[in-house]
Parts: sequence; structure tokens; C-alpha cells
Amino acid sequence: MERLNGTGVSPGVGYGPVHRLVSTVPEPPADAVHTGDAEAEKARAMVALEEVAADLEARGERAGGDAREVLAAQAMMARDPGLAGDVDLLVGRGATAARAVYEAFGKYREMLAGAGAYLAARVADLDDIRDRAVARLLGVPLPGLPEGAARPYVLVARDLAPADTALIDRGSVAAFVTEEGGPTSHTAILARAMGIPAVVACPGATTIEEGTLVLADGASGVVRLSPTDEEVETARNAASAREAVLAAATGPGCTADGYEVPLLANIGGPADLPTALENEAQGVGLYRTEFLFLDRTTPPTVDEQEAAYREVLEAFPGGRVVVRVLDAGADKPLAFLPPPGEEPNPALGERGLRMLLRNRPTLTGQLEALARAAQGTTAKLQVMAPMVAGLAEAEEFVAACRAAGVETAGIMIEIPAAAIRASDLGPAVDFFSIGTNDLAQYTFAADRQVGSLSALQDPWQPALLDLIAMTAEGAKAAGRPCGVCGEAAADPALACVLVGLGVTSLSMGAPALPLVRAALSRHTRAQCEAAAVAARQGQTADEARDLARGLLPGLSDLAL
Amino acid sequence: MERLNGTGVSPGVGYGPVHRLVSTVPEPPADAVHTGDAEAEKARAMVALEEVAADLEARGERAGGDAREVLAAQAMMARDPGLAGDVDLLVGRGATAARAVYEAFGKYREMLAGAGAYLAARVADLDDIRDRAVARLLGVPLPGLPEGAARPYVLVARDLAPADTALIDRGSVAAFVTEEGGPTSHTAILARAMGIPAVVACPGATTIEEGTLVLADGASGVVRLSPTDEEVETARNAASAREAVLAAATGPGCTADGYEVPLLANIGGPADLPTALENEAQGVGLYRTEFLFLDRTTPPTVDEQEAAYREVLEAFPGGRVVVRVLDAGADKPLAFLPPPGEEPNPALGERGLRMLLRNRPTLTGQLEALARAAQGTTAKLQVMAPMVAGLAEAEEFVAACRAAGVETAGIMIEIPAAAIRASDLGPAVDFFSIGTNDLAQYTFAADRQVGSLSALQDPWQPALLDLIAMTAEGAKAAGRPCGVCGEAAADPALACVLVGLGVTSLSMGAPALPLVRAALSRHTRAQCEAAAVAARQGQTADEARDLARGLLPGLSDLAL
Repeated sequence: MERLNGTGVSPGVGYGPVHRLVSTVPEPPADAVHTGDAEAEKARAMVALEEVAADLEARGERAGGDAREVLAAQAMMARDPGLAGDVDLLVGRGATAARAVYEAFGKYREMLAGAGAYLAARVADLDDIRDRAVARLLGVPLPGLPEGAARPYVLVARDLAPADTALIDRGSVAAFVTEEGGPTSHTAILARAMGIPAVVACPGATTIEEGTLVLADGASGVVRLSPTDEEVETARNAASAREAVLAAATGPGCTADGYEVPLLANIGGPADLPTALENEAQGVGLYRTEFLFLDRTTPPTVDEQEAAYREVLEAFPGGRVVVRVLDAGADKPLAFLPPPGEEPNPALGERGLRMLLRNRPTLTGQLEALARAAQGTTAKLQVMAPMVAGLAEAEEFVAACRAAGVETAGIMIEIPAAAIRASDLGPAVDFFSIGTNDLAQYTFAADRQVGSLSALQDPWQPALLDLIAMTAEGAKAAGRPCGVCGEAAADPALACVLVGLGVTSLSMGAPALPLVRAALSRHTRAQCEAAAVAARQGQTADEARDLARGLLPGLSDLAL
Repeated sequence: MERLNGTGVSPGVGYGPVHRLVSTVPEPPADAVHTGDAEAEKARAMVALEEVAADLEARGERAGGDAREVLAAQAMMARDPGLAGDVDLLVGRGATAARAVYEAFGKYREMLAGAGAYLAARVADLDDIRDRAVARLLGVPLPGLPEGAARPYVLVARDLAPADTALIDRGSVAAFVTEEGGPTSHTAILARAMGIPAVVACPGATTIEEGTLVLADGASGVVRLSPTDEEVETARNAASAREAVLAAATGPGCTADGYEVPLLANIGGPADLPTALENEAQGVGLYRTEFLFLDRTTPPTVDEQEAAYREVLEAFPGGRVVVRVLDAGADKPLAFLPPPGEEPNPALGERGLRMLLRNRPTLTGQLEALARAAQGTTAKLQVMAPMVAGLAEAEEFVAACRAAGVETAGIMIEIPAAAIRASDLGPAVDFFSIGTNDLAQYTFAADRQVGSLSALQDPWQPALLDLIAMTAEGAKAAGRPCGVCGEAAADPALACVLVGLGVTSLSMGAPALPLVRAALSRHTRAQCEAAAVAARQGQTADEARDLARGLLPGLSDLAL
């Protein structure tokens, strides 16, 4: 095995030793008995449990917010006197420290299991504590990210969940390689946001041995194992050459024949501004405001919000800044709001605008802060609501914006019904912004977080292109602009198709901007339209992609 | 307060004393101290815990299957010696038995809570045991259904979940009244399947005092409190008169001008056949086969399946029987299949056909049993797959059917993408069957199980009508029949609109058949088509409903 092939989802070349994100620790054999002093063995177990507790606490302190409380509760479990008593008893009977810890957790585990039909899901956190302690006692790698690695490593995993990556430090990761996932997976989005090369959907990735040096190409999707120095050099040179081509594509987004398509950045807070400016974003197409609300026990004040919004508006004098109001729900509950009822499917629950309309002061406060922040700045503030399904909700949101002094109010199109009925919604709002990630999730009934369904999240699927076309037509009929702020906009070929479908601006993770800018500049609007027509004639995502690329000759020059 | 108004979702009149489904038991005050003998108080606590354990076990025995194991595990918790020790200790310090039980559970509860960020959801089963014991000690009503009620009662609840209703006995319930829920809620579906009158979305319902005599009209949605004998008599007479009109509408389904629309029954197993035959179903439009697979630790044999399928086929000589292959997933895992990974949103996960294609022997076994069952019967077997998103899946399923000897293979249209691309799918399959419940859930991103979102599950929403129209057009272009087997077919006005949209057969819970048969027989096909066009011109569900009903004059004769 010299190379593996996956899908490149974040360009660039990463080289370094593999670190596998370990998710399981082996079970110590049932007949593992210690041969030495029982007291010493008991002490080893206690030390391991205490180290786990201290580590969890320290991680919690670093992460802050709700994570601190969750991790502190886990730490408390590791220090439970009942657990320690059980471990003592088991070691006293001859079990090794590792086996004793493993078995002692079993009692708690059974109780959890017996308390409902939720087995697999609910014991995960308990297992995590057990695995950390057992790993320390067995001397095997700890679950989670390595700490204090000597050089940037290539992080390899089955797939990455938000919890895995909460503490990732840009400088320490050379590339991501995952066995599952797709272009809209969490891994891909994170990688593009951080500007780290990434390869997903790469079969065999998790069988690469820890520490193996690999070269991951986030454009071609090729992962080379133990490459020669020459290969590393060549890949790095090719990547640099490609970057040079991209660097040459500057200025506002437009097609080869001068049709302007503003290229904007998706940001998660003011911290993402430098990357957006570096990549010549013409404004912000999606300002996610959750960072202001999550991980805190009291709501942010209007003043605090105003400052965070103004900082972004001032970064784009004369430009556009599209702010999405709070998109929270059962999957990310806010400590200061009444929690929604138990929801078996949070993605289909009371999230986004649905939640804000039931918690009006939160909505009103945010809109007032936005209106105030816009005063005295030259940027054009546009505010939009997530999770709009129909006309009544859209009208309620626009009325709330007007009442708060927000002049331009639009909606996300991310629920199929909103796309299908875009012609009803257009006259009621000032603009549309299509969220292709959620729109695909609902259109194909395929969870974005489930790696095994990644083929169903492919934004090239013709049904999704149809919905985008319906949305753009609805916007055009009402004389409204229609942007895309989902990950689909970051695919240079698909970006051309989106423009061909009638989309009027594109917003993406900023590192993708140069490539999209170059792709657009090499094709006329008519070429984009022809590619869009061709793509919709495909019956599958692959057919659509091939048909469109066949009509976009400028992509081959970009070595894509 | 003399009457409440809700939405009637299952016709008929129910009269009886209110039984409120209790979901919470009060917390005994922290300062509740017993005044008598500590030993006697301890004994009371032990008796209550043992009664709870015995009751849970008995319920488990009656329910059978996996429920038995879950309830047995709960019973074991109630008998936990550690728990008993804690209760003893607390009573010894002066607490009442109820308070001691309440507090003793607290320790377990905290441990569960500390084991993750899942608080509310995971402790529910533990709380249930505690509440049952505390309720016995305080002498307040037990959570759950009453046992051995003297006369049929009107079951009142916020909403009913499947777990609440697993043991409901038809004879003991006069009507259902719920504060939340909509026409496609679990309550509505269950009520129609059982032929029990039901009113949902009825504000104030849960404030009716226990034991109050109420009269619930499942057609008009009116709930009268403490009605006079005359009122009860009048309501019962009106219901009988309406039933007489319905009884007069017999024979195969067709419009006033003779356009035939087969009227079929949705069934969950052979037990539903008598009701289907009583209501003159012309066949089965949806045979859910989950009952053969759930609640068991080994898969059903091909022979066992064959017998269950043949029983239904033989009930409809010359008729049509549409069987849906197993629709399981993370929300209802099967003990004998590898569980899917943890899924944050099971409704968007690896369910239905997705799961079967990964577990081929289960699919093949079911298809073989179906092919065998069809041999020697005159019924027309049609087999369909749930959760088809695209062409590749549809083709795989049809190929598997052909290989197993199943002649007619179709697909459910319940994912928006399948409706949007029906013209691609039509040529690949033998028929479509639209599942309006799931289709609405995905189209509006609104969980069917979340009562507060019931407005978003209204099948009259224009976007859903658009998708049904696209599906019917795709079927027609390919010369394929297109049925509806969701709850939308049971609404007599909507049934006419569906026929107008191009749907060629209607399947529903059998008790709704007479009303739909009567509604169809009073309108021409052209009237249905005009109503369909009008409905799609509405911008909201209410507008669509009003516009359509304005063009369906025969409904007023049915007192609808």
C-alpha cells in the first residue's frame, strides 16, 4: 500500500506523521491478574483515575462554557468513592488495575443500560472515562487529540465530530484524512474554515499505522504513504504553482464576460475576519452569530452584541454584511432559554426562527443590536432568518426587523418547502440566501452528521439543483437577489453552475475564494448557463458533475 | 367553561369520565418527616418499591418482546439493595417514606446526569420508577393508563406517545382528547386505526378535572364538559344519522362521473383485516411489515413471514395487496441486526431501504417469502421500498425484487428528492406510493413527533401539494400508477384534491374509507381537478383548504 485515494475537500498539501484519533481502547482480558503487591496495584488504579479526572478538568477549563461543566461532571465520576471501592475489591481478588477499573465501570454501565432502551448512545460518556483510565494503565494511546506533539501531524479518523475538534490548534495539524464524510461533512467545513488541507471518503485511512509519514493532497484527494523527499518536494512545488495561479486571480468576482458575482465569506465571528480579508472577500455572506450565545448562562447584552457586529461591519466599508440571527435548537440548547421539549430529531425540531418566535426578547434584542451597529458605518447590513418554512414565518420575521430598525431583511432557503414556494416568498422579503447544506439534508432526508450517508449529501444531486433553480427563479420574478452560502459555493465547478442557475452572489469559507474567483473568471455567463442546463439533465450527482464539467473548459487549467 | 374546541381527527362521538394521562408526580416536600414508627415507615417504602417492581414485570409480561426486557430491567432497579439501604438511612433520619424514596433515587439520577450532557432525556426511565413508587406512597394517581376502569373513559393528555398507548385496550377508551398534536400525530393515526373518536390540538384539555364527564365529537372537534343527557342523546343521534349516510355509500371507489379510484386500507398486520373488510376496502394499499421483525431477538423465518403475508393476500381474492418491506432504523433498532451508528436524528438516518441494502439477507428473505406467499393466490402482490431518495437505490431494489421472483416492484415517495425527480424514477419502477406523512416531515423540516410543530405537518400546505403533483406527473409520463398511502388520503376533501392532482388510488386507516368513498361519489373528476388547481393557488394551508372546499359542494351534505 503506497497510496490511498479519497476526495480532496480543502486544497493544499500536508505532510507529517499520522496521528489516529483513537475511539476505542481494548478491553483488558477477563483473566488479567496482577502478580505483585495488591496495594501497589490499587494505588496504580487510583493514580490513573485521578489523572483522568485532572485531565478532564483541565480540558474543561481550557474549553470554557458548558463544556467545562460537562467535563467537570465527568471528572467527578472518575473520583467517585463507590467506584474506588469497587476497584479496591476487584484488585483485592487478584484483577489487574486495568481490568478492575474496566469491571468497576460495568456496574454503572448496566444501570444506565437498565434505565431505558438507549443502550449504545447513553453510555458513551461513561465509556470515555473508563477508556481514558484503562488506556493510561495499559500504556496505549489515549482517546482524543495528542497534546504537545513535536511536529504538525496528519490527523486520521473514521470521521470527525464537533466534539473531537473543539480544541484543535491550527498550528499542530498538517492535514485531515478521514475514512468517511463528504464535501459537506463537519471535517470538510472545519478544514476549509481553518485553511488546513483535507481528504475525506478515503477507504483504508484508519488502517495506516500510527506515526507513518504521509503526504495528503487536499486538491486531488491522494494520500501517499512514506513518500520520498522528492515526492514531497514535487507535491509542494505543484501546490505552490497552483497557488501562484490563484494569487493572480484578484479583484471582485465576475465571469469572463464581466458579469459581476460578489464573492463573500462565511464567518463564525470577528476572529475569522483576517482570513476573509486576506482572501479578498467583498463582504460577508453568512455571519453566524451563535458564538455570542452558546456556552454562557446569561444572554449577551445588546451592547456586547453591538460591538461584535460593528467590528465586522467596519471591516468592509461600503461592502455587504449578511448576518444570520441566532440558529439554536435542541441539539445546542441555550442555558438562558427554556429548553424545547424532548426532540427525537433535533434537526427537524424547534430550531432557528421557530425558536426565536417563541422567545421574542432574544430576537428583538439581537435585531436592535444589529440596527444600532449599522449606524455610522458604510457597510450594508442585511439580516436573515434561518429555518423558514413558509410565508407566515417570513412575514413575521420581516415585520420584527422593520420594527427594530433593520432595513434589509431576508431569509435562508434551507427547507425544501421554501425553495418550492420561493415565488410566494420572494415578494415578502428583501433577499434569499440558499443554505445548501441543510437544504440537501432535508431534500434527501440524510443527516449531515452521518458519514455513511455522505453520498446523499452530494450537492451535485439533480434534485438539489432543481430546488436551487426554483429559488433563483422565484427571486428573479420578485426582483430580489439570491445568494448561496452553503458549502456548494466553495466547489469551483459547482460555483459556475450556481451562477448559471441564476444565483447572484456566492459566500463560502474564505480559503476557497481564490479558486472560485479564478474559475468564474475563466467562463462566460453563457457557459455557466449551459453547464447548469446540462447538469440538471443528469439523473445522478456523478452524471450532473460530468455533464457540467464537460462544458467548463477553464477548470482543467486550474489543475482541478 | 362548558366546551372546548379542537380539531376532530377520527369521527364518532365518545362520552365518559375524563382520565388524564399523568406524566408528573409531585415532589414530596424536603421537610416531610414521619411522626410514627421508623420501622413501619421503612416497611411502607419497601412495599411500595416491591409493588412497582411487580407491576412493571407484569406489564412487561403482557407486552412481550423487547418491552419485557426493558421493564424487567426497570423492575430490577426498583429492587436494588443499594437503593433500599439509602431509603432505610433516610427514613431513619426522620424522612417520610415518600421523601426518602424520592431522595434515594437522586443519587442514581445525579450519576446519570454526570455521565453526559443528556440530562433531561436519559433520566426519564429512572424518574418513571421513582414516580410510580412516590405516587403509591402519596396516594396520588399513578402515571400511565388506569387499570380496571369501571366504564370506558375519555383519555386526555398533552399528546400521546407510542409508549403511552402500547397497552391501550379498545373497549376501555371512549375517546381521545389531546392538547397538542395534529391530523398526522400519533394520536390521530392510532385513533383512526382503532376506530376511536379523537380530538387533537384542543387548548385547555389538560386542565379538565379528572372524572369530569365529557362528550367528545371526533368530527367537529367540539368537547362538551358535563353535558346534559339531552346533549349526549342529540350528539349520538347526529353521529348515527351521519353513519347512515356513510353506510349508503358502498361499492368500489369512484367519482360521480364514474372515474374509478380504488380505495384501499393501511394495515399493520393480519389483525387489522376485519376492520378493513368491514369498511369494504378493495385491497391493501400499505401493509406495514415491521410487526414481524420488532420485539424479537432472532429474525422471522421465511416460512413464518410467508404465512403472515399469505393470510392478507387470501383476504382479498382478485384484489391488490401492496406490501412495504421492513422500515426499521435507529429509532426502532432490531436486536438481530448490527445497530446503525449513533444517529443524532434517526428520521434522517440509515433507515428503510438504506438499512436493507446494507443487510441484504434480511431483504432477500423478505422478498422470497413474499414471492412464495403470492403463489396460488389470486390477489395481486405489489412490493415497495420505503425511504428511496434516488435512482440508484430504486434500481437496486427493483433488481432485488426481480431476482427473488416478485413481479411488481415499486417505491414509496416520501423523500422530497424522489418527488422532485419522479420523472427520472418512473421508468425504473412499476408504481409509486406517496407517503404524505414522512414527505411532509422532510419537506417542512418538521418532526411528526413534535406536537408544537403540528401546523407545519398540515398536509394542505401548498408545497406538499406541489410535490404530490410533480410525483403524479412523473408517474403519468412513464405510464405508472401513483397511489397515496399517507394520512392525507383519509381527509375527504383532500382525497378529492389528491384525485384531482392525478393520484390513482387512495389508501388509509380503514375506518375513514366510508367517508372518503362518499366524498368521492359526490364529485366529478373535473370538480376534483378544479379543486386541485385552486388549492395550489393558495399561499398557506388554510387558503388551500378554503379554496378547494369552495369547489367541492358535496362535502356540506356530509356534515363535514
